[in-house]
Amino acid sequence: MSLETRIRRKSLHDRIVTPEEAAALIKDGMTIGMSGFTKAGDAKAVPLAMAQRAAKEKFRITLMTGASLGHDIDKMLTEAGVLARRLPFQSDRVLRAAINRGEVMFIDQHLSETVEQLRSGQISPIDYAVVEAVAITEDGGIVPSTSVGNSASFAILARKVIVELNLSHSPELEGLHDIYIPAKRPSRTPIPVVACDSRVGSPYIPIEPDKIAAIVITEKQDSTARISPPDAETISIAGHLIGFLQDEVRKGRLDMTLNPLQAGIGVIANSVLSGLADSPFHDLRMYSEVLQDSTFELFEAGKLSFASAASMTLSSTWADRVFRNIRAYKDKVILRPQEVSNHPEIIRRLGVIGINTALEFDIYGNVNSTHVGGTDMMNGIGGSGDFARNAFLSIFVAKSVAKGGAISSVVPMVSHVDHTEHDVDILVTEHGLADLRGLAPRERAPVIIRNCCHPAYRELLADYFKRAVATRAGQTPHILEEAFDWHVRRLKTGSMLTGA
Amino acid sequence: MSLETRIRRKSLHDRIVTPEEAAALIKDGMTIGMSGFTKAGDAKAVPLAMAQRAAKEKFRITLMTGASLGHDIDKMLTEAGVLARRLPFQSDRVLRAAINRGEVMFIDQHLSETVEQLRSGQISPIDYAVVEAVAITEDGGIVPSTSVGNSASFAILARKVIVELNLSHSPELEGLHDIYIPAKRPSRTPIPVVACDSRVGSPYIPIEPDKIAAIVITEKQDSTARISPPDAETISIAGHLIGFLQDEVRKGRLDMTLNPLQAGIGVIANSVLSGLADSPFHDLRMYSEVLQDSTFELFEAGKLSFASAASMTLSSTWADRVFRNIRAYKDKVILRPQEVSNHPEIIRRLGVIGINTALEFDIYGNVNSTHVGGTDMMNGIGGSGDFARNAFLSIFVAKSVAKGGAISSVVPMVSHVDHTEHDVDILVTEHGLADLRGLAPRERAPVIIRNCCHPAYRELLADYFKRAVATRAGQTPHILEEAFDWHVRRLKTGSMLTGA
Repeated sequence: MSLETRIRRKSLHDRIVTPEEAAALIKDGMTIGMSGFTKAGDAKAVPLAMAQRAAKEKFRITLMTGASLGHDIDKMLTEAGVLARRLPFQSDRVLRAAINRGEVMFIDQHLSETVEQLRSGQISPIDYAVVEAVAITEDGGIVPSTSVGNSASFAILARKVIVELNLSHSPELEGLHDIYIPAKRPSRTPIPVVACDSRVGSPYIPIEPDKIAAIVITEKQDSTARISPPDAETISIAGHLIGFLQDEVRKGRLDMTLNPLQAGIGVIANSVLSGLADSPFHDLRMYSEVLQDSTFELFEAGKLSFASAASMTLSSTWADRVFRNIRAYKDKVILRPQEVSNHPEIIRRLGVIGINTALEFDIYGNVNSTHVGGTDMMNGIGGSGDFARNAFLSIFVAKSVAKGGAISSVVPMVSHVDHTEHDVDILVTEHGLADLRGLAPRERAPVIIRNCCHPAYRELLADYFKRAVATRAGQTPHILEEAFDWHVRRLKTGSMLTGA
Repeated sequence: MSLETRIRRKSLHDRIVTPEEAAALIKDGMTIGMSGFTKAGDAKAVPLAMAQRAAKEKFRITLMTGASLGHDIDKMLTEAGVLARRLPFQSDRVLRAAINRGEVMFIDQHLSETVEQLRSGQISPIDYAVVEAVAITEDGGIVPSTSVGNSASFAILARKVIVELNLSHSPELEGLHDIYIPAKRPSRTPIPVVACDSRVGSPYIPIEPDKIAAIVITEKQDSTARISPPDAETISIAGHLIGFLQDEVRKGRLDMTLNPLQAGIGVIANSVLSGLADSPFHDLRMYSEVLQDSTFELFEAGKLSFASAASMTLSSTWADRVFRNIRAYKDKVILRPQEVSNHPEIIRRLGVIGINTALEFDIYGNVNSTHVGGTDMMNGIGGSGDFARNAFLSIFVAKSVAKGGAISSVVPMVSHVDHTEHDVDILVTEHGLADLRGLAPRERAPVIIRNCCHPAYRELLADYFKRAVATRAGQTPHILEEAFDWHVRRLKTGSMLTGA
């Protein structure tokens, strides 16, 4: 395939430069918006050239993306000292450590909100958008690759745009995207998405072609997801959840096609979704932020009829299989801006069933998604809040213990709150499921302790609850003096268990 | 005015009964949905008769309302032992105490969500809706009074309806309401509200007339709001906020008509809104859940052009003035179901500026709206979450100290989280304003300590933050062992100050 078919606007051919030349455009103090969502469709060559340049010439930037990046980009940029400020999400070990040392300022945001703040000038404007594409249209429109994320609004709102045209992606990705940008207020109208398969925008990012400052040609593939196979615990979690959903069907609250499904990134949510392949449900639909292997397992199992998201992040096995055959998914998959995939308006309208992973939750149903020990950032809240708050059913899943049992995921009080009791309907661990709907906090605690807690912690937790009711009472009984004792014990001894 | 013009469907005249006869329909174990939102438009005669009946014959019910009730109804029902379960909001001293003793199960919900859960059968169905009205139409449609709240969906979804026709309300209230009910999924379409003054529904609650089981005639007026006049602190809070908003205009993020305003119930938010009467802004609009005195002060000052909400709760002075003259407000005010007034879809679309009251907030911008000392329910989260999460600007206001300085509203860590750091843009006390947009937690803390904290606590708070950074570091530095020391000290000594 020639460059002519990839860059269909002839006048743009003279903008082709080396990654180094493109990176040289980026100056100290600038705000850069890059494509990339859960490692998919990230800019690859320019950030690498930026990190290399920083070795010779110090500069620091604010970096915004869709979500996490692949190819160790966040690691390289951190090690090169380029990142002063990072938003709205990351999942890199090296960057995370720098954030927790206070060296990089990390603004942890709901994934639907970044471009909303950007559009209204509430956060610093973008100097350069660096966006991966599979093609540039006759009009200069940018056709994104395996993610849309925030790329569309970044490119539209940026002063200038650098395009990474990635030849390794199938040109057949064109047509998969649906770019819709909410109008400016006060003339904003409803977002017309009324079903997972609603197409309401254009297949490319419409920008003024003159804004394209540089085009870099790359051939590097997306980083692939490292997805562990389901294990005994995740299979058990999926089992509890499927049983619950079947029960909801029996009670007339859902039918066998369920409501549109969302599943957070990661092993547990992916496994839970895989579990649906063996369920009796049919004609399922996804309205999610990321499509993982499990989505395509469900397609192949004939269980899924449509999937909408902001990105596709696959293992190498599934990436080969899906992208070689992407034409077959053209009428089954839509990739949207994350503002739309995660928009409260649409999530509530469609009645999405949201399945997200908790780091820990407490006996009253508050969820910590982000902070280890209340202080240290793991990845970020991501889209979990967009979905949990607006979902028809807000489900959080976790393994009941971590670190070989040294850490209980069910605690007296979470050390950091990302999702309040108001936003959590269902909690599931391998031990069982707690249905919190319509329950007061005092009623939630026994159900969570009995159904979700690991047996090794059950008595300790029941004892805390009992004493909290007796000592302080209240709507949400707690003994503040010891609410964090488990966390403090872990910090000091490595385990939440007494005498461990 | 004769009953014929109030009950315009002749066949319903024989449904008129005494409050006692209506109350006798309500049986032990039933779920009852009553009108009433921030004391406005509550059912008055039937709940009183229920409480009286319970003195002779014990029965317990689940009671849902729009929000808080007037006329000590919650108090009387609590004392009569009628309330087994209560949702989604209350503000009564006696009920609150019973909730905190664990005698009444209280489900504290986002105000937009109750009828959503009810409609999908996720909480127990309503046996009787008891709804105050100013009229019943020829078709049996119910014209609500001073609030819509959840009345429309309660009446539509209930097995049977009891109407309290209140002759003390002006019949001129008819035409003020706009009843729109979202369609069932999966055929739900966008809610067509695109501006504060959008009329998208009917002026009455459409129900099958045969569902009206009883009509009770009353003449009792709404409880009036006890609104304290602005004091030095609330005037100062309003001043900081107005200065900030002017600055936003200068920066081009708002124009002089601002975005639609929401203000939570209560003295502080009301005073802040009053303060806008002397501001340079003009043609303001409200998209809120409750209209208080300040709304009509702004109308009279020529500052406000339109106000949309779910209820009107006025002091006796303003109630006289406004309701005598309600015809003049027909094209300036709309009362909507709280599902619409508080809907994430609309709040986000319109770009509402949400102003809500915090009980306490912490150095990282997490807000506690509900729980005193982390355990005891005050009123409930109400609509603050609906607005804070989806607002263009999410603002929380509080006086910096309470109980004569014994309690600081700015603490190291809130003892209960209702609004996470992700949902809080601006914090204001009488000492100043903290703009948290685009700041990482470590950057938020110094701004909050410097601008919002009372001087008596400033050094203590700065010391905690400094030591937390030095001891544990992290994205959100905390020393879990002492994060609640201030709260524990207050429990033990009555004051958060050391040596007090």
